[in-house]
Amino acid sequence: VIVTVTLNAALDVTYRVKGEFALDETNRVDRVADHAGGKGINVARVLHSFGDEVVATGLLGGCTGARIRSLLDADGLRHRFVRIADESRRTTVLTDAVGATGLWEPGPVVTEEEWRAFHDAFTHDLTHDLAHARAVVLAGSLPPGVPIDAYAQMIGIARAAGAYTILDADGAALRHGIEAHPDLVKPNAAELAGLTGEPVDGVAQATRAAKIALGMGAAAVVATLGDAGMVLVSPDTTRQVRQPQRFDGNPVGAGDACTAALARSVGRPWDERLRDAAAMSAASVLAPVAGVVDQETYRRLRQLVAVEGG
Amino acid sequence: VIVTVTLNAALDVTYRVKGEFALDETNRVDRVADHAGGKGINVARVLHSFGDEVVATGLLGGCTGARIRSLLDADGLRHRFVRIADESRRTTVLTDAVGATGLWEPGPVVTEEEWRAFHDAFTHDLTHDLAHARAVVLAGSLPPGVPIDAYAQMIGIARAAGAYTILDADGAALRHGIEAHPDLVKPNAAELAGLTGEPVDGVAQATRAAKIALGMGAAAVVATLGDAGMVLVSPDTTRQVRQPQRFDGNPVGAGDACTAALARSVGRPWDERLRDAAAMSAASVLAPVAGVVDQETYRRLRQLVAVEGG
Repeated sequence: VIVTVTLNAALDVTYRVKGEFALDETNRVDRVADHAGGKGINVARVLHSFGDEVVATGLLGGCTGARIRSLLDADGLRHRFVRIADESRRTTVLTDAVGATGLWEPGPVVTEEEWRAFHDAFTHDLTHDLAHARAVVLAGSLPPGVPIDAYAQMIGIARAAGAYTILDADGAALRHGIEAHPDLVKPNAAELAGLTGEPVDGVAQATRAAKIALGMGAAAVVATLGDAGMVLVSPDTTRQVRQPQRFDGNPVGAGDACTAALARSVGRPWDERLRDAAAMSAASVLAPVAGVVDQETYRRLRQLVAVEGG
Repeated sequence: VIVTVTLNAALDVTYRVKGEFALDETNRVDRVADHAGGKGINVARVLHSFGDEVVATGLLGGCTGARIRSLLDADGLRHRFVRIADESRRTTVLTDAVGATGLWEPGPVVTEEEWRAFHDAFTHDLTHDLAHARAVVLAGSLPPGVPIDAYAQMIGIARAAGAYTILDADGAALRHGIEAHPDLVKPNAAELAGLTGEPVDGVAQATRAAKIALGMGAAAVVATLGDAGMVLVSPDTTRQVRQPQRFDGNPVGAGDACTAALARSVGRPWDERLRDAAAMSAASVLAPVAGVVDQETYRRLRQLVAVEGG
């Protein structure tokens, strides 16, 4: 089983406005669509759609948390979220005839007791029911109140249980997490630049920054660079994958699809893992919702991806 | 006790974005505020704040409905909503340094059984626990699935229970409702124009249109005309109230404050009722939230309002 952790889960809401969205006026929303979101949940949804056994965990609260829970149930996704008192956040995307505008609510405030309850539940799960977890994916931002070294604590717990740990985070959460030596870190260019203080534009700079990240504690780094593809840096090897094909579509969730591919391929050779990750990431852009991958496109692209270096 | 009915209740959400809201970008919401909303609920909140005994009823569903319920509890408002399966709607107002933009979700879909359940509960309440209701306020839009003559049905039930009926609706819901002879209809200029097919710009045209509305079945009409004040037309009298003072502020909810004043003053002379309604309406503009009235301003303005005609 693969465990994904989403401490700042979100209800992803899409509003479609007919015609053009008008500032400083009242806009009637034509259609509303809700999805359970947040990086770890998106990763879990991809894994579930490929038939992998996955359990999503993290924090959920309030009416928005209850709605996320019922959407996870409707998706048939196994989950074990810990309840908090404050409202989980919503992220709303307004789409109209012209474009898409995002509205990101701040995360819920988590109390010390709630964090402690989650920490204990996570420890218990990974020493009991989920003791045989192959991989633990820690993904996304930390809501206010969660300790900044939360990911470091969880990497320690997951490692003690023998699980492979993948960290996809940003800023201080990433910086502290990396010190606990995760097996794999998956930053994008901006996250890698923020972590290392080095500019990351293109493959050469990303490779250089990823090596700095290794020095900070990561056992391996796969950096996603958008149209420039991906770079893997580990103590043994440096490899590069080009984007197999560029699609117009929804780039949100491409990183989560990549993380899902890397989580389901633990133990396989890097060339295969990177090929899967690049194909999965490119295919996810075709789906309008994060956490959904067009499987046929994925299988077709996987044949086309070339991994360089070694 | 006064009963207010809100068939299309809403969770009113205010998003504050720091700086300027940017189209086609991701905007971080700085602050989120939630209030129970919809016209009938706003009326109930005003009445409750003035110490009047009030019960809010209508339809609520899903996680948004649960949130509205808990906000009503937090406000200390008595309520008896009937549960529906679909999600109650949200109305979001984005405020930034420049202005305010509204996003109105469509209402929930109400099944025939759910409407029947509400109809039966309303009938039961008005013949048992709420049999002594002084007034019933029917306010706001009808969600999809509710019969277009819903207000007419409820006016019949309320009248049979001896309650004074006030209707604040629009379009077909207003047109059908008025045929059941409500004691008072409170349209604004646009609603009155839509009902009568006559242009309504200013006091003279509003008076003429209100007389047409009397002919359609209303026992009395109080039309709210924004800066132009209000006009009352009944078979016995035509009166006019000027806006006592113009405030910059939040005009949403001024009509609901007016309806609340007219509901709590049933049985008193029209001059007093109109003076209260004009003062309440003007004072509500000072509060940032619909359903809240600055009571000191209301008391001061009430001394200043002059009613003309008779």
